[in-house]
Amino acid sequence: MNSWKQFQEENKDRFLNELLDLLRIPSVSAKSENKEDMLTCAKAVEKSLQEAGAQTTKIYETEGHPIVYGELIVDPSFPTVLVYGHYDVQPAEPLELWKSGPFDPTIIDGKIFARGSCDDKGQFYMHVKALEIMTKTNSLCTNIKFIIEGEEEIGSPNLATFVKAHHDLLKADVILISDTAMISMDTPSIDIGVRGLSYIEVEVTGPNRDLHSGVYGGAVANPITILSKMIASCHDENNHITIPGFYDDVVESTEAERKKMAEAPFDLKEWSTDLGIKEVWGEKGYSTNERTGIRPTLEVNGIWGGYTGEGAKTVLPSKAFAKISCRLVPHQSSAKITEMVLAHFKKNAPPNVTVEAFEHHGGEPYMTPIDSHEYKSAAKAIATTFGKEPIPVRGGGSIPICALFEKELGLKIVFMGFGLDSDNLHSPNEKYDIANFYKGIETIPYFHKYFAEKNA
Amino acid sequence: MNSWKQFQEENKDRFLNELLDLLRIPSVSAKSENKEDMLTCAKAVEKSLQEAGAQTTKIYETEGHPIVYGELIVDPSFPTVLVYGHYDVQPAEPLELWKSGPFDPTIIDGKIFARGSCDDKGQFYMHVKALEIMTKTNSLCTNIKFIIEGEEEIGSPNLATFVKAHHDLLKADVILISDTAMISMDTPSIDIGVRGLSYIEVEVTGPNRDLHSGVYGGAVANPITILSKMIASCHDENNHITIPGFYDDVVESTEAERKKMAEAPFDLKEWSTDLGIKEVWGEKGYSTNERTGIRPTLEVNGIWGGYTGEGAKTVLPSKAFAKISCRLVPHQSSAKITEMVLAHFKKNAPPNVTVEAFEHHGGEPYMTPIDSHEYKSAAKAIATTFGKEPIPVRGGGSIPICALFEKELGLKIVFMGFGLDSDNLHSPNEKYDIANFYKGIETIPYFHKYFAEKNA
Repeated sequence: MNSWKQFQEENKDRFLNELLDLLRIPSVSAKSENKEDMLTCAKAVEKSLQEAGAQTTKIYETEGHPIVYGELIVDPSFPTVLVYGHYDVQPAEPLELWKSGPFDPTIIDGKIFARGSCDDKGQFYMHVKALEIMTKTNSLCTNIKFIIEGEEEIGSPNLATFVKAHHDLLKADVILISDTAMISMDTPSIDIGVRGLSYIEVEVTGPNRDLHSGVYGGAVANPITILSKMIASCHDENNHITIPGFYDDVVESTEAERKKMAEAPFDLKEWSTDLGIKEVWGEKGYSTNERTGIRPTLEVNGIWGGYTGEGAKTVLPSKAFAKISCRLVPHQSSAKITEMVLAHFKKNAPPNVTVEAFEHHGGEPYMTPIDSHEYKSAAKAIATTFGKEPIPVRGGGSIPICALFEKELGLKIVFMGFGLDSDNLHSPNEKYDIANFYKGIETIPYFHKYFAEKNA
Repeated sequence: MNSWKQFQEENKDRFLNELLDLLRIPSVSAKSENKEDMLTCAKAVEKSLQEAGAQTTKIYETEGHPIVYGELIVDPSFPTVLVYGHYDVQPAEPLELWKSGPFDPTIIDGKIFARGSCDDKGQFYMHVKALEIMTKTNSLCTNIKFIIEGEEEIGSPNLATFVKAHHDLLKADVILISDTAMISMDTPSIDIGVRGLSYIEVEVTGPNRDLHSGVYGGAVANPITILSKMIASCHDENNHITIPGFYDDVVESTEAERKKMAEAPFDLKEWSTDLGIKEVWGEKGYSTNERTGIRPTLEVNGIWGGYTGEGAKTVLPSKAFAKISCRLVPHQSSAKITEMVLAHFKKNAPPNVTVEAFEHHGGEPYMTPIDSHEYKSAAKAIATTFGKEPIPVRGGGSIPICALFEKELGLKIVFMGFGLDSDNLHSPNEKYDIANFYKGIETIPYFHKYFAEKNA
């Protein structure tokens, strides 16, 4: 075992510099202007897999951004671990709030500040480096396959087609994903669930052109006012979501489950102070951790309409827009919820305006059973390197493809995340602690070891 | 009299071309990037006054954009007409909706398409050309003073100081303004009132940074949702404004006045079709013309927050913003209403967010008595050139400085506007019919003639 640690120590500066190079590529999947960067990034990922010891690699074209595949089959009798990750990142805007360039990774106080540093380049790259350590030390006791896609942040629109067409290629015994967080380095945890997602966009049109708000104001429906009313109507006074049927398929957690969740260390005051808020908000009857873990949500991710420039313009605008997404929990269906939310905006529109609404993307919620060998292998690996048993928690984020993986490949997914909630995912100044990066690299080989032990 | 018409006929192409040159200057007062253009425009206005026959002209610097003054004192015993106008224009955005460049005036079907063509360059310039006609034909029977400012579209923040400091300079017998519309060329009308204005901006702050909507969604107040709720709460189900005290100072029109208003020709179907709306909207119990004429309003002029780019971003934003303005009627006070609206947003903010709100600008409502010599002179001038008595109507727009003019200078204001409501003021594709421009130039000398007759 010491050989793993020794190899890592001797190469850790290089590991870090390689990650920084990867972070310099602005692989924003949502933006067409970054299409070339996406291909550049895919090629860099493929090269890194080859250098780490993958025998076979291939970049698969899709209708959107390419998927990078790599594998190392040591022995057909070994169990196979399929590592999933993504090389695409969220848009970096608002740029003016970044303290350093989002694609100019900067290390401050042992943390790497860059878009994608934690989500997910820094995390999937730990697996690339763990592969290198295991191959260079001749200690691989599993076969490894990598599937690193470029469309996770836009809902993996082309991955399902790929998975369905490549059952044999992706044949494995477990899927391992590092794209989540732990409570802290002192309190390691494992996400046992991710929430599903429904993401829509709404366009409200009033008059056929922007109007003078004096000449027409008061007599023509203002699309911003109407959109605001429709958004306001999505939550009642207890912050329950009002859309009919929204909660129908939600599996209510038992009192026992909720009691166990409440035992996880959580300092509400510290959490609020970190966010700069005086009071938390959310659905009545649930704690903060329950609101982000076991309950579905509806959030407005963006809104715009009318004059948004400097100074004042007295306009009654023609159009107003909003981007809105829901996080879903078992057994809500992304397709059903998307349909309900679209219907809410279309059907509740007053006759003075026209409302168009369409789906961006979605994904189903997913949960890992904690009594499985898959989960136990991850827990044991973390206990080995952290010196503490990890706590199972319900994560708030989404990895849209999980449910499909399980259905198509018949595999359980383990979320072994080494990020922190405070890593500013999807926000300005995203960061990843170098210590977490190194700890992840150190921990991953133990997962392979423990997972292989039973199967061996 | 024929000499006026003859001079105009001989010079009409030049008059038009001079206006087009003025429209090429992007004199957007709201934008700091156009500061130099504002000075260029002021100088062009001063030059045009000199060429039209003004004896004295001067550009007065202010803390913002300069004021252009010009005068021609023919005989101290003549009555003096003070012409007010503005050379600044509204921002041209959204640029993509313009069919031709906003500062590249383009003539299509006898209409000049350009920002400021009607509001107000095309309209104040009629007075410059009327001055030229009267001086060149030696037929001026009034003294004329011009005050053409550069900050009307941002609420005339520096004009009040100027007026207060220059009572002698601005001494006159009437103020004449062409910055409003008439019903149509077939149905001439005169605005007897302009609405007042209160314009504010609201900034709602939730968490101190943009957050991942999965990790934090459902547990932190979303500033867009909160702002939407606060906007939604501004109108009740009858579209009455809910802000306490908002209507306290509104002078209710009498049944007789409302009956007279209803006699003005107005085709609701044609009006709605032109705007592309299926149904009008507004305060219950009032007609469309009443809603824009005699009732106050609250409109959202702009809203923005979160991710507004291409595709999807799962962010719970830190901030959301709105620009909101109210149109006011006698005897509402702009300062009082501004205070009420600011308080609505500040005091109704839930404890989960911080709300900042500030005033952009305001102005008081104003009405001209129709039994005055001032009004009658304008009505007679229009009757002379249009062959029809104009109808007195209540306009929906605002000219913030009117109430101050009356108070400081002790003068009545006459609104002799030659625009049309369909001229797309403040909107893309603003236009001004060349026929209206010429008709205005033809009509203005008659105002001077009839106004002088009584005083003579």
